[in-house]
This record gives sequence, structure tokens and C-alpha cells, in this order.
Amino acid sequence: MKFSQMFIPTTKETPNDATLPSHQYLIRGGFIAQTGAGIYDFMPLGKIVLDKIRAIVKEEMDEAGANEVQFGFVTPLSLWDESGRSLTMGNELLRFKDRKNGDYVLSPTNEEAVVNMVKNRITSYRDLPVHLYQINTKFRDEARPRFGLMRGREFLMKDGYSFHSNAEDLVREFNHMEETYKKIYTRLGLEFRVVEADSGAIGGSGSKEFHVLANSGEDTIVVCDSCDYGANIEAATRKANKKEKLETIECEKVHTPSQKSIEEVNTFLGTDSYYSMKAVIKKAVYEEKTEIVVFFVRGCDELEETKACNAVNALELEDAIEDEIIAAGIVPGFCGILGIKEDIQVVVDNELQGDNNLVIGANEIDYHYKGFNLTTLENVVYKDLVAVQEGDICACCGGKLSYTKGIEAGHIFQLGTKYSQAMGANFLDENGKTQPFVMGCYGIGVSRLVAAVIEQNHDEKGCIWTKETAPFKVDVIVSNAKKDEELEAGMKIYEDLKSAGIETIIDDRKKERFGFKMGDYELLGFPYAIIVGKKLQDGLVEIANRKTGQKTDVAIDEVVQKIEELLK
Amino acid sequence: MKFSQMFIPTTKETPNDATLPSHQYLIRGGFIAQTGAGIYDFMPLGKIVLDKIRAIVKEEMDEAGANEVQFGFVTPLSLWDESGRSLTMGNELLRFKDRKNGDYVLSPTNEEAVVNMVKNRITSYRDLPVHLYQINTKFRDEARPRFGLMRGREFLMKDGYSFHSNAEDLVREFNHMEETYKKIYTRLGLEFRVVEADSGAIGGSGSKEFHVLANSGEDTIVVCDSCDYGANIEAATRKANKKEKLETIECEKVHTPSQKSIEEVNTFLGTDSYYSMKAVIKKAVYEEKTEIVVFFVRGCDELEETKACNAVNALELEDAIEDEIIAAGIVPGFCGILGIKEDIQVVVDNELQGDNNLVIGANEIDYHYKGFNLTTLENVVYKDLVAVQEGDICACCGGKLSYTKGIEAGHIFQLGTKYSQAMGANFLDENGKTQPFVMGCYGIGVSRLVAAVIEQNHDEKGCIWTKETAPFKVDVIVSNAKKDEELEAGMKIYEDLKSAGIETIIDDRKKERFGFKMGDYELLGFPYAIIVGKKLQDGLVEIANRKTGQKTDVAIDEVVQKIEELLK
Repeated sequence: MKFSQMFIPTTKETPNDATLPSHQYLIRGGFIAQTGAGIYDFMPLGKIVLDKIRAIVKEEMDEAGANEVQFGFVTPLSLWDESGRSLTMGNELLRFKDRKNGDYVLSPTNEEAVVNMVKNRITSYRDLPVHLYQINTKFRDEARPRFGLMRGREFLMKDGYSFHSNAEDLVREFNHMEETYKKIYTRLGLEFRVVEADSGAIGGSGSKEFHVLANSGEDTIVVCDSCDYGANIEAATRKANKKEKLETIECEKVHTPSQKSIEEVNTFLGTDSYYSMKAVIKKAVYEEKTEIVVFFVRGCDELEETKACNAVNALELEDAIEDEIIAAGIVPGFCGILGIKEDIQVVVDNELQGDNNLVIGANEIDYHYKGFNLTTLENVVYKDLVAVQEGDICACCGGKLSYTKGIEAGHIFQLGTKYSQAMGANFLDENGKTQPFVMGCYGIGVSRLVAAVIEQNHDEKGCIWTKETAPFKVDVIVSNAKKDEELEAGMKIYEDLKSAGIETIIDDRKKERFGFKMGDYELLGFPYAIIVGKKLQDGLVEIANRKTGQKTDVAIDEVVQKIEELLK
Repeated sequence: MKFSQMFIPTTKETPNDATLPSHQYLIRGGFIAQTGAGIYDFMPLGKIVLDKIRAIVKEEMDEAGANEVQFGFVTPLSLWDESGRSLTMGNELLRFKDRKNGDYVLSPTNEEAVVNMVKNRITSYRDLPVHLYQINTKFRDEARPRFGLMRGREFLMKDGYSFHSNAEDLVREFNHMEETYKKIYTRLGLEFRVVEADSGAIGGSGSKEFHVLANSGEDTIVVCDSCDYGANIEAATRKANKKEKLETIECEKVHTPSQKSIEEVNTFLGTDSYYSMKAVIKKAVYEEKTEIVVFFVRGCDELEETKACNAVNALELEDAIEDEIIAAGIVPGFCGILGIKEDIQVVVDNELQGDNNLVIGANEIDYHYKGFNLTTLENVVYKDLVAVQEGDICACCGGKLSYTKGIEAGHIFQLGTKYSQAMGANFLDENGKTQPFVMGCYGIGVSRLVAAVIEQNHDEKGCIWTKETAPFKVDVIVSNAKKDEELEAGMKIYEDLKSAGIETIIDDRKKERFGFKMGDYELLGFPYAIIVGKKLQDGLVEIANRKTGQKTDVAIDEVVQKIEELLK
């Protein structure tokens, strides 16, 4: 392809809201253009990258035995009523009416659509398993679309769904998909990590996320420095943080004037925050109500909100304001597990189970209890609520846990029968008995990967595409295209590279100077450039390596061979 | 691919509303599944066909020098306000609000989006021409979605847009696209015709349609039996139908009791309907009003409604009811050009221009005029209004015109500056002067082509895919897959064909009988089947040709070579 014949509108201007490098460079490089909040057009170079990623995903999915399909992007709301998600998906599910007042949605995901496709078309265990996937546009009406392609509203996603006659076969496919996904990210040239994950709104049990490691990642990933353990902090666990057990003492109410925070109370009482219960008061949002809930973790721990949300089966948690807390009969700053009204849900972190001699709020202004023994209470609900901290101990191997940042680029779920049951999608098993399909689902954020590649691979000058994702592998830069000999030499190299099957673009623009072309090359991030300039008279051109910045003189007739070596 | 590992849910049931063969067979063959009115999922075989057509379109568009892009499917309504089409597109433009009450539409076409992409990014004539295209989902909220993929609401379309610095360059690209489209339809193995067309809602001047010839086509195409002339009846012209001129006589009002129709009047008066003016009264719909309009054509001609609509610049024409006609001061059945109120638009067909001695309505119950001389009237608006009839004479060559039926599968337009001017999209020309871009646009109905191939290629048993569109070229049918020797021989042939690069599927299903497999093969319409059955003991298999129904015995080791010959 020739620069002169391709629409590559690079610019020096960065959009005001573009904080991430990928957002800035993809806009500046003319890869994408914003047309609305969270909605992007792909311009020619961006489209090539998107298609390359898409092609790799397709190849590996086909190789893994999945069948590609395509669901309607517009789906009737009635399908979402069948599954119950028309109620639970909230505002992210964009609904609209057609000219006949029919209710439709823009598909944000397709569990309902795939169950609808398979239902009554597969009726026997003999036709299972089946794995159907598509790579198609999705729309999620995010409250805060941001970060360019990273968190858009309209995006391209690969979503696959498998159907099985039993849970064992689902686990087999789940593991097969984990391996398939690893191949995909490896082929894309990405550093990534597979981690344990929370299952979120999709539901089901057992899920793993695939994170592209990058400082700008929105997700905090907990990883072990000794073993393979990795988990999203939303799902991360640790070896319980256990200090020595104190002796049991008499529980006693103590005056703690104006000592509200855990730090204040423990400093005031001379106690260790480890031996205290910290209350975190939230509003839990359900389909048809919102209510105050109270979580207790150790004074030295922090609440992990996703875990807390799951613990009370809420759609989401919101911050509770003081008036609401008081209205619920709780004394802010002095909230303890004793004296909370019976109709308020209370959940205590697993690690506090069995503890004695604790400092807790007395639910009375300026008072706490000390020496409280948690084992004296019955019917306490214990769940895993803590946010794993850096330095915590790995539950798998005893190694040290630390944080890293990741961009979620894939997620696989063991759904089980949640959707098949809700939608009455059944098959006959070996014994002629009706059973709901056992399902898995598997997603990859294809357009998000375009951005993720750049988040992981860029410098202060622009993009650095990996070999598999680069729109072109080589940019032949003709220093001065008005000089016939330079243009001819450049064209010869360009044709030779193309003949060798190497994706090449030639910067043959006559109106642009060399410096401008180099700037474009660096911004656009092709892996290699071949600079055809003054050294031509000595039969030499320069090969530049975008990643290392290195430049090497090469004899013209060795260029193809040299590039082939570099691309290996 | 193996039948046993692919989701191909064939069925004997035909949907009630499926009148077209393509609709019936695509559903019965498990190619597509309906999920809502005019909304279809593509199942694995359908997806393969869709992608094959898509790939051919992409290859030829790239080869023609166009750059592929991807526009957001959701576009802000504000873009449509800029062009003015938010008012003129009517209900087909599906509008909705997002969670923040912002106005958006589902893109039915992308003139606005492409102008928005190019505007301010191309600023000089030196960067022109540019041709951008995409192959992406569209949504048109059709009043009556029907005929399966033929007239869906959600569909896949290739839409391309070219930008030029002058009209000559647009014509060059327009012709280039005509040739490119011909290549595409030829590669798809289709019989097609390029015809003159009406430009419709897209606007602009000069457009051509590409019709796949099929009896079930919704469009009537006028073709010449002697030359290349072809036109959609909406735009078709003919050599004026001229009988000898009568002598001019005195105009005289005559009593024609209850003689309302042209036939009645002319029989009653003993005149030739050729020498009479037929009134066709319609309601013209405009953005903000609806009004009665009157068209006159010869008594022996028929009004072509699209021409009539264009003649009065209306959005559409509706039938006028008697009360409305009377309210407009017109006497139904006796409407003539004399005595129509001045504020009513009247258009007369070109071919009547200069005529004398005509029979016309008197605008009075039971009266007509005879001997009316049209040349006595001033300020008459003449336009081409007639529907060309079979047997009319070709204006190009004098040959005979006839009708054929076509499925519109492509449309190319010379848009001119309609959109660039409305949206203020300009460039600087050679003289440094600001000019609006001169534009062309070019569409291909990709998902509609899936159906069009079948409309043109089917029999009473099912689909007959062309070689380029078939999901697999060969179906290896193992008569009884429970017999090891048959299954092994089939697998060997299957592997050999795949190794030779021939797309092959093997019907290795153990639970299905031979007759069922043959039925599926015929319904699914793979070009060739290789039947592995009883003749195996003689070292033979049968090759079946889906189109001709012919079956030939072939020695097993000659199968690949034979198939390669057939596919040439």
C-alpha cells in the first residue's frame, strides 16, 4: 500500500479527555475517530489492526472446534424477559422501541440469543457438545464511557457459548478454552496473565480472566512471586492473616469520646487494630429495593467491595450517607455487631471467625466494647470479604503476594444451567430424561485489544505494534520522493518486500519532508522502517527498529533477507 | 469439517410467511434463524456463505483501490440533522435515546458518517480522490419486513463513498465501480444486469442498479432484446410512442353519462384511447404537508409512480380517496386539465406535448371535452411519467423492450455535492479556493446476496449454491457410517480433498440413514457429493452433481482429480 493512496490522517492534536497513551496515539495516528460518547469509527489503519486481531481470534476458535455464527445485533426484549435479565441488567442494556412500538435491545452479550438458537434445535445428548461463537458488535450503555477503545459503548467482542450434557464436559471445554485463549494472546505478542475472577452479572460459578499487563490497567491483579497464582483483587484470596490468639476476658463497655476511626479507637485504647472489628456500612441495591447492610472486617483489613456485593447478593453497593445510617438505627462511628436491628443484613469476614477479645463499636455515641468474644454470637454469616494486600501470603504456596495492573481482555465462565433453565432449553440424556443444557461462555474484547496492545507497547513517540498486530510490518520511507532515484529505489524495495509476502507500506508522499515522515512512522508504530535517502549513492539504506530505536545500514539487495530475519 | 461436529439444524418445517424459495430453504437448511421481524441470526453454514460473499466484495474493493473502514453502527442524530435527513428519512431511520437522553440512530446508510470522517481531515485537492468503504451491519425499520434476508430490517451491506475534486473524476470512479461490481457478481457466479436507476432517497444524479435476475425479484427491469439497454422500470425510457397526428378540430363539451374510465369514455365516443388524457390523482407527502396532485398520461399509458413522485419532488405518493379529491374541487371520473384549481400541482407526460384533438374530462359530472388542443394551454409542466410497457421500442437502438424480474443487489450513485455542501465539508482546490467535495456512493447488499444466489439457483429439492458461494464444495456422504470400511474410505477421501485445498464436509453421522443424508445434501445444495456406499467393494464411489442431478461412478483414487476438473 502507498501512503499517497491511503487515508491516514495523522494529527498533532490530542483530545482533551485522552489520558491513556492508547487513546492519544490511536486518535493522533488516525487509527480511530470518535463520533459520539464511547463510539468510535475505525479509519483504514485501525481497521487493518482490528481485522488482524479478529482473524487470529477466529483462526484459534475454529481450530479449537467452535462453529462461527452471527447473532442479530438488535434482539427482542422478550428474550431478556425469558432469562430475567431485562430486570437485572440495568441501564447498560439499551432498550428502544421500533416503529410498531415493539421492544428491542442492542445486544450487550448473547446468552439469551444463543440459548434461543440452540433450543429445540438440539434435543439429544448425542448432538452435544456444541460450541457456537461470533465476533460481532456489542453495545453497553456505560454510565462513564472513557479511555477510548478501552471502555467504549459500542465495541467488537468475540463471544462464544458451549453446551454440554454434564458438568465434567463443561470443565473439559473450559480448560480447552483457557489453552485456546493463551494461544491467542501469545500469538498477538502480548504479556498476559490468567487469573481467578469474579463472575459478575453474567452469573455462574468458576471464571477466569485474561489480563494484558499494563501500568494503565483498570484492574488490580494479585499475583504470587513464587507460584502461578493470580487473581483479580475482586476474587483474590490469601493465607489467613493469623496473629496469636489473645486470652478471653470479660466484655466491657468503655468510654471512647469522639474516637470514631479504627486508628483513633485503637490508639486511644492502646490495642492492636488486628484485634478489632471494623464496620463498613453500605446501601445494597436490589431489583426492587435498596437497603442498608453492614460488613465487618478486621481493623487492619480493607473491605473488597465486589466480594461484599456478592455476599449479600446485591446488584451493586452504594455508599450510605449519615442520615440513612442513622435512620437504620446505627450510630455512625460507633457501629458494632451488637445491637444492630434484626432486619439489617450483617456479614462478617471469614478470618474473624472464632476470634475473642475484640474491640467493637457499642452502637452508642462515644462508646465501644473491649474483650468482645465473637463466638458468643449465634447465626453470624461469615463470608470472604477482605481485599488482599501486597505482602499477604499466597494460599497456594506460601509465597508473597503483590499487585500488578491488568487490562481485562478475556473472560471465561462456567455458567452451568442458569440460562438454559430460565429459558426452558433442554435435551434428552442417555436415559431419556429431560435435562437443561450445561453451559459455558467465553469472551474476548477484540476492539479493546487494539488499545491494550498499545498500552503495553508504546513510548513517548507513539505506538509500537507487535509483529502480529501491526497494520504493516515495514514502512519504506522515501526521504525525498521528488527525487526520482529515491522514489524508484524505494518502489523497488517495496515491490520486493511485497513479493516476499511481507506487508509493506511505502511513504511515497511528495509534499511531506523526511522529518515529518519519520514522525508519522514513529507515531504509527510499524515494527520496521527502511529509510531510502542519501546513502543510496553507496548502495545502502537504513533499517530502523521501532522498538529499540536502532538503525542499521544495509545493502539494498540484502534488505528483504534482513527483514525476513528480523520478522522471524 | 464433519457433520457430526457442526451445528446444521435442518428441518422439514417451512415458516408460514416464507413464500420465496430462498426464505424457505435458508430456514429449512439451518443457514439462518429468525429472531424478530426482519432480524435473522446466521447459523454456521449461513455464516460461511455470508463470509464468502463478504470476502469477494472486500477483495475486489481493495483491488479497486478503496480503503476499508468501519463506522459506528450507532450514530448521533445530530449528524443527520446536519444533512437534513433526520427530517426526510421518515420511520425507516430508527431513533432512540441513550441513558443520558442523548439522541441516536441505528445507521441505515452512512453518507453523514463518512462526510464527518473526511471533513477537516482532508483539506487539499492533493489528497483526493479518496474512496472509503465498509462492510457492516445496517438497520432500516421497514414497514413490512418480509422475504427473509431479501427485505430484512437488520442486514449486512457494503457501503462505499468516494470523494473527488471535480465531477469528471467522480464519473471516472463511478465507471470504475461499475466494472468492479461486474467483477464481483461474475465471481459470485450470478446472472445479473446493470440498469439505469432512480436515485431515490439517497439523492444525487445518475445512478445504476445491479440486478440479480430471478423470477421472484421485486423489481421490474426493462431490457432491450437488441442492445445492452436495461433500466429499472422506475427509470426506464422508451422511444416515444407516436401515432399519426389528427387534424385540429373545435373543442366541444360532450355528454358522457356515467362514462368514467378511459375505456368507457373512448368506447362511448368511438375514439382511440391514445388520443385521450388519463388523470391519475394522488396525495403527495412532503415533510410538513400532504397535498393533492394530478398527473396526466395518455389513455393508453400507465403512470410510473416513482417518476411521478420525483416529478413533484415529494417524499412519497399515496392514494387519494374520493372525499379528498372532491374537497380539492376535482370531479372524480371526469377530471380534466381544464378547470383544476391553480394551487394544485399538475404534471403532464412528455409524450403528450404538442398534441391536439384529445378527449379529456370536463371536471363536471357526466361530461368530457373532445377535440381539446393541449398547445392552447400555457405554463404546462411536462415530465417523463409513463411506465414503459413490454413491446415498447428501445430509445437507444429501436429494438423491442421487454420485462424481466430482478433482485436489486447493488446500487451506485453520483451524489455530487449534496452531502458535502449540507455538512460544510470542503477542500482547497488548485487555485486555493474552497470547494465542497464531489461525492459518489456505492452499495452492495451482502446479506441480501445470500438469498439472491438461491433465488437464482434452486430447484424443488433445495439450494444449489454457485461454486464461489457454496459453504463447502463437496459433501462426502458416508452411506452407513456405522460400517467401519465405509467410514474409513469416506474419511480418506475427505482428507485427500482437504489436502488438495478443496472445501469439503463429510457426513459422518452414525444415527442418520442414507436417504436422510441425501435429503440434507440436496436441501443444503453443496455443488457435489461423493457417495461412499455399496460400490466400495468394486473400488468405486459415486460423484453427484447437485445442479444436473447426474451421478457418475468414479474409482476411489481418481476422486480428487475428477473433483478438481469439475471445479475448474
